[in-house]
Parts: sequence; structure tokens; C-alpha cells
Amino acid sequence: MKAIFLIHCPDQGGIISSVTNFIHKAGGNITYLDQHVDEEAGVFFMRLEVEFSKGTQPMGMVEERFDKEIASTYDMQWSMHLSTTRPKMALFVSKYNHCLYDLLIRYSTGELKADIPMIISNHDTLRPIADQFEIPYYFIPVSRETKEEAENKQLQLLREKEVDFVVLARYMQIVTPRLIKEYPNKIINIHHSFLPAFAGAKPYHAAFSRGVKIIGATSHYVTEELDAGPIIEQDITRVSHVHKVNDFIDKGRDLEKLVLSRAVQLHVNRKTMVYNNKTVIFT
Amino acid sequence: MKAIFLIHCPDQGGIISSVTNFIHKAGGNITYLDQHVDEEAGVFFMRLEVEFSKGTQPMGMVEERFDKEIASTYDMQWSMHLSTTRPKMALFVSKYNHCLYDLLIRYSTGELKADIPMIISNHDTLRPIADQFEIPYYFIPVSRETKEEAENKQLQLLREKEVDFVVLARYMQIVTPRLIKEYPNKIINIHHSFLPAFAGAKPYHAAFSRGVKIIGATSHYVTEELDAGPIIEQDITRVSHVHKVNDFIDKGRDLEKLVLSRAVQLHVNRKTMVYNNKTVIFT
Amino acid sequence: MKAIFLIHCPDQGGIISSVTNFIHKAGGNITYLDQHVDEEAGVFFMRLEVEFSKGTQPMGMVEERFDKEIASTYDMQWSMHLSTTRPKMALFVSKYNHCLYDLLIRYSTGELKADIPMIISNHDTLRPIADQFEIPYYFIPVSRETKEEAENKQLQLLREKEVDFVVLARYMQIVTPRLIKEYPNKIINIHHSFLPAFAGAKPYHAAFSRGVKIIGATSHYVTEELDAGPIIEQDITRVSHVHKVNDFIDKGRDLEKLVLSRAVQLHVNRKTMVYNNKTVIFT
Amino acid sequence: MKAIFLIHCPDQGGIISSVTNFIHKAGGNITYLDQHVDEEAGVFFMRLEVEFSKGTQPMGMVEERFDKEIASTYDMQWSMHLSTTRPKMALFVSKYNHCLYDLLIRYSTGELKADIPMIISNHDTLRPIADQFEIPYYFIPVSRETKEEAENKQLQLLREKEVDFVVLARYMQIVTPRLIKEYPNKIINIHHSFLPAFAGAKPYHAAFSRGVKIIGATSHYVTEELDAGPIIEQDITRVSHVHKVNDFIDKGRDLEKLVLSRAVQLHVNRKTMVYNNKTVIFT
Repeated sequence: MKAIFLIHCPDQGGIISSVTNFIHKAGGNITYLDQHVDEEAGVFFMRLEVEFSKGTQPMGMVEERFDKEIASTYDMQWSMHLSTTRPKMALFVSKYNHCLYDLLIRYSTGELKADIPMIISNHDTLRPIADQFEIPYYFIPVSRETKEEAENKQLQLLREKEVDFVVLARYMQIVTPRLIKEYPNKIINIHHSFLPAFAGAKPYHAAFSRGVKIIGATSHYVTEELDAGPIIEQDITRVSHVHKVNDFIDKGRDLEKLVLSRAVQLHVNRKTMVYNNKTVIFT
Repeated sequence: MKAIFLIHCPDQGGIISSVTNFIHKAGGNITYLDQHVDEEAGVFFMRLEVEFSKGTQPMGMVEERFDKEIASTYDMQWSMHLSTTRPKMALFVSKYNHCLYDLLIRYSTGELKADIPMIISNHDTLRPIADQFEIPYYFIPVSRETKEEAENKQLQLLREKEVDFVVLARYMQIVTPRLIKEYPNKIINIHHSFLPAFAGAKPYHAAFSRGVKIIGATSHYVTEELDAGPIIEQDITRVSHVHKVNDFIDKGRDLEKLVLSRAVQLHVNRKTMVYNNKTVIFT
Repeated sequence: MKAIFLIHCPDQGGIISSVTNFIHKAGGNITYLDQHVDEEAGVFFMRLEVEFSKGTQPMGMVEERFDKEIASTYDMQWSMHLSTTRPKMALFVSKYNHCLYDLLIRYSTGELKADIPMIISNHDTLRPIADQFEIPYYFIPVSRETKEEAENKQLQLLREKEVDFVVLARYMQIVTPRLIKEYPNKIINIHHSFLPAFAGAKPYHAAFSRGVKIIGATSHYVTEELDAGPIIEQDITRVSHVHKVNDFIDKGRDLEKLVLSRAVQLHVNRKTMVYNNKTVIFT
Repeated sequence: MKAIFLIHCPDQGGIISSVTNFIHKAGGNITYLDQHVDEEAGVFFMRLEVEFSKGTQPMGMVEERFDKEIASTYDMQWSMHLSTTRPKMALFVSKYNHCLYDLLIRYSTGELKADIPMIISNHDTLRPIADQFEIPYYFIPVSRETKEEAENKQLQLLREKEVDFVVLARYMQIVTPRLIKEYPNKIINIHHSFLPAFAGAKPYHAAFSRGVKIIGATSHYVTEELDAGPIIEQDITRVSHVHKVNDFIDKGRDLEKLVLSRAVQLHVNRKTMVYNNKTVIFT
């Protein structure tokens, strides 16, 4: 059985040695270890993949002992994830279908190792795609008046299905602080610009008007400040004077799909950690 | 003899036909033609490379006739550049040597087809490099008190040597409106960020603090608004959480060199036109 | 009505002037012109987009006159394409679904301006996807014994539906000289390597074994020599020692999709010309 | 004092734990640890950066104890490098100056932390550049008749100055098996193509003739088989039908410089390990 450990704590000597010793004695074989020290902040980060052979103790006991013997000593914040557990992901969409399609295809081919118990939308437009892939689709209209009620419905659905994280696949609504509080660093957004350039609405129009030679897309965790959360992944593509706004939008779609799906994969594979509004992205 | 024509005028039917007819009758062979229509602004842009065989009329007469017969009809702004004329370029530097070295090496190998009558600096630091390449170096200190006097000296030098355009190769001073007015769209700057993100001072520090996954560099013509002039060229490189500010600066140096030298080459080869604070970049 | 002209002929003086004059007199407004001279081969290439206003003569007559007055004078090979005519594209697939999905989504959103009268496959695996998008699916098994019979069926279908060009969207069979002869420079393949490196079978395995740091994908027109036809588009992605063959394959899928769809778009938009086993790709 | 450990050995359980324990007990603080398992080959690779505080035992003793207590147990091949020791690098050049300039500038600014006791060339052309940077320049002509004698002189110089590794900065001669044997995985070459495509002579001409849309450069360790050694770094740039062979060469120069200098930096910073004709490149 494979387990992934994500750890961060105040930096100090001996951590790696203590952790790897513990794993070794617990019958685990480390197949991957990566660590990072943020020297400015004095914080140590580590990601481990460990293969536990069958005859070993129950994983619950490993967790308990690790917490007592190691984590408490070094004041760690940590989590352990078994490869047998697939995280549950909710998709929020509006009318654009490209990111939705892209994620559903990766899901259907098994490339994306998450479950998708629901798609939530403020429009009924993309229901046929949900049907194609046999994912439950919930149409929850959002207007200024119904915003709170809509949010209640969303939260209820997310709780019912024990959703682990949310992906805003070009969802054209600002999510509320309540949802963000319930899913801290667990809501992934795709913004169609090279943040921090062109935050906010209509980034392709703004990029066109500035005359840039490169456009980008940015996937980030959602925080209360709009388009200012920890960046997970970015990518770019070249444009020139021959491209109009619509060409930016066309080229941008491919960028958005790729950048969002890479970010989702990183999250699903437990390769992201957040600290001080930045991410550590393990390889 | 090769001549390059750069033309822009209000868009209307028949321009290409009229221009190419004129060239053909004047004994020229068009070896390159590229055109662009900015449909929003209703402006037509064209770049032509023309080979005139020897027996033909003097180029001065071609210019005069083109102006009378074609340019005035279509209300053109235009220029003709002979391949025998190398533009004169002044380099402004402070203490960083990487962009200066890069341009001087391209100059010395003949890759950059411009003359460099002077390097002007507000420090004496880089004089030895100027000496290596045998370029006159003028040390003109700039302080708040001497700013106007320094500018007078700069302008006098530029005029004396009939400098055509100015390259700010990491010159750490803001150039004055007077200089900009004398060299409109003829001062090329390199900014060490992916503009419009991180305009102003210390862009690498700002990028690091925001936790971006990609950094960039931007070369643009200088206008009165800081870091807001028409963009000529941009490029980017990936960074990650393992990189500190100093790594950003190291990686950025290579970007800055390449982006600035590409922009300078485009300018020297008459491949740039400016309109509405944007550039048309011909291939 | 918009028409696209594609022209190539022996290089000589006066071609652009003659062509643009003709267009102007025929009541056309040139909205795009790009030309290229292959100096080694002495060949001139040109692509024009022309807007003909309503009151003008029938397009058939324009074609006839152009052929008589211009094309014959300059010994041109040329074609004219009306923007009202969508080319008909046949998709050949085997078991991989990613390129198929990608093209069908672009088709369904209107981004890809072609008709798709058929999907032909040597397996029945991907029929459900064809059904999702309501495209006729023909399962034509291919074995060594049935190869000729299968080819007959394929050709019959292509002719019946008047297919203009064929896209091999990871079709795992070598197409026969007969098909190639019937569709010269009209069969587009995607090869999952950075050609000419790793031509032939299993390129990801070969790339892995060589220890490359970058993998690629190449879309090209199919000629009789395997993986050696004119290259339309290529792109790459970085890999490292941490990636196994399966990671190459995963990363490669995204590359293959993008590179193939870009090549198909270039072909559909009449932006490709072939000469001497190379392509001219207009912007 | 900072020390870098490079280790590889047959993969087995407990290695990381044993090594990190040893370091911890020896008074070292691990500031960087990266490891890799080549599962196919069953080989474990590790790179450590360790800060030893002043009061600790002499480093020679640490080395001796590590060898006895750890390395022998796990059958390790390993090396320890002190950050106080700068490797000695010899540059071999012919007539091209761009890679030479690039490395010397990085050396002179302190970005490249190696010493350069000599430049060896089969031509006298680049001596003035060596003089600019005050590096000894040895002109050793090579012809078919004098090849062995020339090699003797080269080897003698390399030994005299205790050179650690050799960089072929566009050296246009094939180095001999004798030199390769003396510097196994310690001779770095830059090849001006995207290997394995276009190995051998005149790769830009071959790429042009094939009509590729992307050209590349590859830096690799030199082995006896030409252009087939372990790849350290590759990069690419786009080309199109408008570019002639000379444009490929111009664009290639910038690629070659960057790729070679990145490879040299990786080697100098002890971030490369070689196994089975491939490299492990640590971050």
C-alpha cells in the first residue's frame, strides 16, 4: 500500500533523519522524497511517497504513532493520504465548455485519478455534456437576490457527497467567503491571464488593448481577494499584431484547458502545499 | 541596391495595387511584401523590400515621385531606407554589463548592422568594456541637481554624432520628456518583467513575493508614461518555489539580453511600426 | 463574399503588381496578402484574401479571367476558395481517443470550420464518441489479407461523400500509396515525436531510452516514405529523469492533440502550400 | 562549511534513513536533499547539500567515516565536494566566438563558479578574446599528421593545471578516445541540433533541407560514439519557411550559448549524475 506524507514545520536540524528513521522502522520503503526550506520564513516542507508492505501494522496505527512520536516533537502540520483513496472533486461551470470537456475526458480515460460526484452550474447549458459522461448535473441559478440561497444549496450538495475540493472550470461567478472558508486552499480557479497582469474581468480585451506579445493563463487557489490567491501553474502563448481579441480568446482556450488540468492533477496527486500565499509544487 | 519602404495610411481599396505598380514601373523587383490592416482603427500598414537594378534612376528621384504620385493620393506616412545606410545607435548604460556585452558582441561579429558612435553612462564602471570594443565612452554623472545639465550634454552628443536611435541597456535613470520628444518611438528600453505585470522598480522582488511560476522581460519604446510604451518583444522563463530572488535575477539576465537584442534587431532592420501605442512587427 | 487565392509560380518581376491590379479592377478589396520567395528554388508563393462586394461579376467569371489573363502569363499553379465553402474532412482513427475528441469538440463549437461526413476506423472502440457528436462511424477492419478490400471500401466512402482531405488522428495503420495518390498533400498525420528524430514505431520508448530532455510531436502531410512528408507543425514539451515512458505518453497526448489540431486548422483555413517536400505556412 | 554529496548505489530499503542519520550525528544540517530511483535499472541516486558548523570534526574524517560506515554497507559510488573548492575548467575552441564569450562573461561576473586555467584552440583566431579576459591561450594546431602530437600537448596542459573538466565550446575537432578515457563524463560538448535528430556535420543545413519548424541545441557528455553521449540539456526555437540556412545559424547561436552555459552550470554545481548513458539532473 502506498501512502503520501505532506509535512511542514518550523525549520530545524534532524527532521529528515527523524522522519525517515520512523518510516524505515515502521516497515515502509521510501520511493520518493522531496523537501524544501523557505529560508526567509524559516519553514521546512517535505513530501514522501512510501510503500508499506502487507504484513505491516494497520495504517491507522502508523498515523497515530507518527503524530505522537514525530509530528508533535517538531510542531508539524501534516497529512497522510493513501493511494487507495481517490479525492472527490466538484466541478463548477457556467457556459464555456472547453475546460469541462478537458477534465471529463481525462477523468473518463483514467488519467485523472479523482471522483467527480457532481457538476454545479448557474446555467443549464452544459447539461448534455454532463449526460455524455454520466455525471450528475445540478442547475443552481444565481442572481443577486438568490445568491445566499444558491450558496446554501451548493454547500449542502458538497457536504452530502463529501466533496474534497472544488474546481472552477470557467465558472463566471465570484465564490463567497463562506465557501472559501469551508474549502481553504481547496478551490482551484483558472484565470485567463498571466496574473498579476490583467486581474479582474475581460483580461483578453485588456491584453489586446495593451498590445502585449504574449498572453497567459494562471491557475490558483481561491482566496478572498479576487485573483490574488496562491498560484499553482501558469503558461503562455505568443500573439502578434495580426491577432484580434477573438484570436486571443481562441488561443486562450487551449491555454486555459492545459493550465487548469495541470493544476488539478498536481492537487489530486498531493503535490501542492500552500504557505504565505505561495505554493510549493513538488515534482 | 535594396530599399525598404515603410508605409501607413487610412485603409482603402487599391493601395497595394498602386504601390506595387509604381515599384514595378520604377524598375524595382519586390522581394518582400507584408501588410496589415488594423480594422478597428481603419489603418493600413505595409513593409516592402525592393531590389532596384543598377541602370535605374537615382533613388532620390524615386522617393520624390513616390511622394507625389502615391503617398499624397493615399495620405500616407512613409519612409524609405537604403540597405547601404546603417542606422546610428547610442547605448545608455549604468552598472549592469550583460546587455551591453550582448549588443557589443553582436555588433562586433557583424550580426547587428548598426553603427555605435557612443556609449553614455551615469557611472564610469563599464568603461573597460567600451575600450575592449573600441567604442567612445562618455561618463555623464546624473544627480537631482545636475539632471538638466546632464541631459544637455547627452542631447549635444546625440546631435553631434547624428544618432538615429537610443538603446537603454539597463540604464537605471528615467529619461526626460525632452529626450523622448527628440526621439519619438526611437528610444528602446528593456524592462525586467512581463509587462504590464510588475511595472516600476524591483520587478523581480515583486514577482518573487507574488509567487509567480513564470518571469519575463519586455522591450518597448519609451514614452512619457513609465513602462507603458509600445511593446516590441517579450519573452519568459519558468521559475519555481526553489528559486530565490537572486535566482530570478540570474535567470532574468539571460532573458533581458535576448529580448533587448531581438527588439534592437527588429528596429535596425526596419521591421517595427508604431500606432496607437502598439507595434506592428513584420516578419 | 470572401475568396482566398493560393498561387505559386516561377519567380519573376511584376507578379504582385499584376495580381493586385487584376483584383482591384475586378472589384475586389485585398484584406490580406502574404508572399514568399524560395530563392534557392526560384519559386514565388502568394496567399491573398479578397473581399468582393455584392454588385460584382459572378465568381466563376473572375476565376476564368484570372486564369486567362494572369495565371497563364506567369505559368501559375493556383486555386481560389470561397469562404462559403467548408472543406469536407474524414477522420481515420484506431483506439486512441484524445485526438478524436479534441477535433470533434473544436468542430462542435464551430472553432473548426470544416464538415466531417465520416469517421473511419479499423476498430469499433471509438463508436460511442462518434455517436456523442452524431458523426457517421464506419468500422472497416484491416488485416494483412483484407488490406486491399478495406482500402476499396475506404476509397468508396471518401468518393461518395466527396471528402476533400483526410486526417489520421492516431490511426495505427500505414496508409497505402493508392490512397496517398488520390489525396496528394491532403492526408494529415500526427507523429508522436519531434521528427526526424524517432521516426517509425514506438517513438516515446525510443526517446526515453535515449535520455532526451525534450519530447515533441509533428504533424505532416503523408507521402509514400514513412514519416518523411512535408512538416506542417511541431511542438515540444520538457521531460526529465523523473519521467518514465508512461509519463512521456501522458505528456505526449496533450502535445499530439494541440499539434494536430493546429495543423488541421492551417489546412482548413488554406494557409499551407507544399513545395519540394516542405511547407509554406502563411500567418 | 557547505558540502555536496553525490551518491548512487543499488536500490534497497533504508538508505535515506541511514545517510541522513549519519549526517545528523556528524553535526551536519541538511539544507537540500533530492533523490531518484531508476526502477528499471534498480539504482538509487541522491544529492545532498549539508551545512557543517564550525566546531565539528575535520571534513577528511567525515569522509573516511562515511565511506566505512555507510558507503561500504550499501555498495555506494559516491563523492563529496566542498563549496570552497572551485572546479577547474578548460575551454576548447576553434573559430566561433559566441560560446566562448558567453562563458567568459559569466566567469568574469562571478555567475560561473569555476576557474579557467586555459583556453586551448586549433586556431589562433580567438586569442584576443582570451587576452580581454586574461586567460592563458594555447594555440595547438591539429592536422591529420599532428593529431597525436597535438593530443599529447593537450593532455600535458590539462594535467599540469589539474583541470577537472573540459568544455568544447564549438570546438570543431573530434576528441580522441584517449582524452575521453582520461575525462569520462567530464567533457561537455554543445551540438547544434536537437539530438538525436541531425547528428554529425552541418545539422542546420540538414534541418533546413528537411523543412522542420523547430530547431534545437543539445549539450551532452562526450563518449566514444559521436553525438551519442548522455544528454545534459536541450532547448529549441521556432523557425519557419521565411528562414534560410543563415537564419537558422543566427538563431542557433543564441540557443547554443544558453544550452551550453546551462549544462556547464549544472556540472559546476554538481547537479549531474550519469548512469546507463543518461543523466540525472538535480534541481
